[in-house]
Amino acid sequence: MLGAPSGSPAGEHRATDVQEQLGSELAGVERLIAGISDEVDVPLLGQLLRHILRPPGKRLRPRLAFLSSRLGHANVRTVTLLGTAVELLHTASLIHDDLVDESATRRGAPTLHQIASPKATVLVGDYLFAKSAALATATDSLAVMALFARTLMAICDGELREVANAEAGDLSREQYFRRIEGKTASLFVAATEGGAILADLRSDGIEAMRQYGLNLGMAFQIADDVLDLTGSVEVLGKPVGSDLRQGTITLPVLWAIENLSDPLIGAAVAGEITAPALFDQAIARIAGSAAIDHAMGEAMRYAGRAREALSAFPHGEARRTLELMADYSAQRHR
Amino acid sequence: MLGAPSGSPAGEHRATDVQEQLGSELAGVERLIAGISDEVDVPLLGQLLRHILRPPGKRLRPRLAFLSSRLGHANVRTVTLLGTAVELLHTASLIHDDLVDESATRRGAPTLHQIASPKATVLVGDYLFAKSAALATATDSLAVMALFARTLMAICDGELREVANAEAGDLSREQYFRRIEGKTASLFVAATEGGAILADLRSDGIEAMRQYGLNLGMAFQIADDVLDLTGSVEVLGKPVGSDLRQGTITLPVLWAIENLSDPLIGAAVAGEITAPALFDQAIARIAGSAAIDHAMGEAMRYAGRAREALSAFPHGEARRTLELMADYSAQRHR
Repeated sequence: MLGAPSGSPAGEHRATDVQEQLGSELAGVERLIAGISDEVDVPLLGQLLRHILRPPGKRLRPRLAFLSSRLGHANVRTVTLLGTAVELLHTASLIHDDLVDESATRRGAPTLHQIASPKATVLVGDYLFAKSAALATATDSLAVMALFARTLMAICDGELREVANAEAGDLSREQYFRRIEGKTASLFVAATEGGAILADLRSDGIEAMRQYGLNLGMAFQIADDVLDLTGSVEVLGKPVGSDLRQGTITLPVLWAIENLSDPLIGAAVAGEITAPALFDQAIARIAGSAAIDHAMGEAMRYAGRAREALSAFPHGEARRTLELMADYSAQRHR
Repeated sequence: MLGAPSGSPAGEHRATDVQEQLGSELAGVERLIAGISDEVDVPLLGQLLRHILRPPGKRLRPRLAFLSSRLGHANVRTVTLLGTAVELLHTASLIHDDLVDESATRRGAPTLHQIASPKATVLVGDYLFAKSAALATATDSLAVMALFARTLMAICDGELREVANAEAGDLSREQYFRRIEGKTASLFVAATEGGAILADLRSDGIEAMRQYGLNLGMAFQIADDVLDLTGSVEVLGKPVGSDLRQGTITLPVLWAIENLSDPLIGAAVAGEITAPALFDQAIARIAGSAAIDHAMGEAMRYAGRAREALSAFPHGEARRTLELMADYSAQRHR
């Protein structure tokens, strides 16, 4: 059994206790985030930070940090710092990502560069990277800081890979999986491995939580890539098929290229369609094919591995909730 | 006397020893920097990193880190990590800065966004921020990491202030000094305070080296702002008066606004001149006025304060070299 070194009460909490506690812990993250826009004295920055940080979202990454830390014994304050750092790192990477992809909306709201200059957008992203580094540092844990630096590198590697692959027309699955590991799964790892570090788990427990976060993140991103094709504008808060429109090739599209000899899809992938109606048709053909089941099968395989990584931890509410999150991660397209 | 806790031999080295040692230490920084472009496996990234990291420059910040660490007892390896981290942070901030300012050349070479997409440029900057964080983390010093995070925040604050001040037409000296402290002096502080931390100086010694770096950085930036007006295209590697052309208001320009009732200069500051010949004339009028002597007087005052901050350290080659750097910092326009 992994988990806390001594006889841990981690498995003994009742479900309601865990949910109540998590609620109050996440409220701490909200307070820290709200404080960020208030503490700056450059008015432009404060205003832009409020725009970008206001929509609370699901705070999935801080949630994972708290739940992971529940497998051992952690100080709530340091996990709050970690969870907020990971959330801000996520936000910063989205700001730069939306700018370089020229995305107009996210979660139904205008992206930052729609309401600010590209100049201010780059710098607000940088500012959130900086703030995130400061919060990671405030945990006073060398291991968390090293993890933070690795995460930053992995995100950049994933995003640069996306640009390079798009320019080179690279259509390999290997590159796809490396891209989403860098862009998405690395942030899940930062939350789950970081929570495990702060909870003083043994090295095998930390490695297990690293595997959990990695596989959960992969499942989550594949399901998200499916949703981009099968969702509606209302659910997505952005146009259906945005990834392909921006030249980002995802797993269902790779399957369609490999298995359907459809010239329309080929042209859409090659960026050779400008007529919106034709593009919509290409998206609909992929969404109506077995590409979706194939991709969701892959997502479920990753979700299963995430679940497995938890097997050595004691049964209890924290583990049960993490298992449910793994199951849920591969169901987001329904 | 500040400096190393025990009877330190720091003051006993001969000048040639110090210079030779510094040369071999800086070679270590070059090796680390060269390794960065080689270790990446995204070809586009490797190529862009080589472009941006190739021109060796003066490596002023790593030099300051080594010299500061010589006031106590530091491990060369950790100071090499620190110096490289600060140099990369500097490079990353220049990449984003040149992109948002739309500068075409730096040190006579095309800026990164001239040879790569804005997308890749933002991400290469982010990558160097990440690499820099990883190197700072590798020093294994919590104090250095905290300093690194503060530096990142200060740089962003300075750059955002520049954007906000330009948009608001803010012409106060207070804002100018806060901008250059954030953008420039903070990186000097990272080098000198970081060197002092790694050399195990006492807290008053660390504070003295913080003051040294801060004042040196202010002197350096003011002299640089003067050079932007008084230099030649050949010396600058970019057009004369680039700052004003980009809407960045520097100390000599502030003096000219405060003291000369020159409508041409007023129009240039307000961004109301598009004719290049008229703009050149406005630049020449500022460069030919007492604005230059005034600004250099301020630079010398800061350089003097930097020198003073060293007064409590034992005499010796390290201190002498740092004093010379202070003197030199306010003479760069000649």
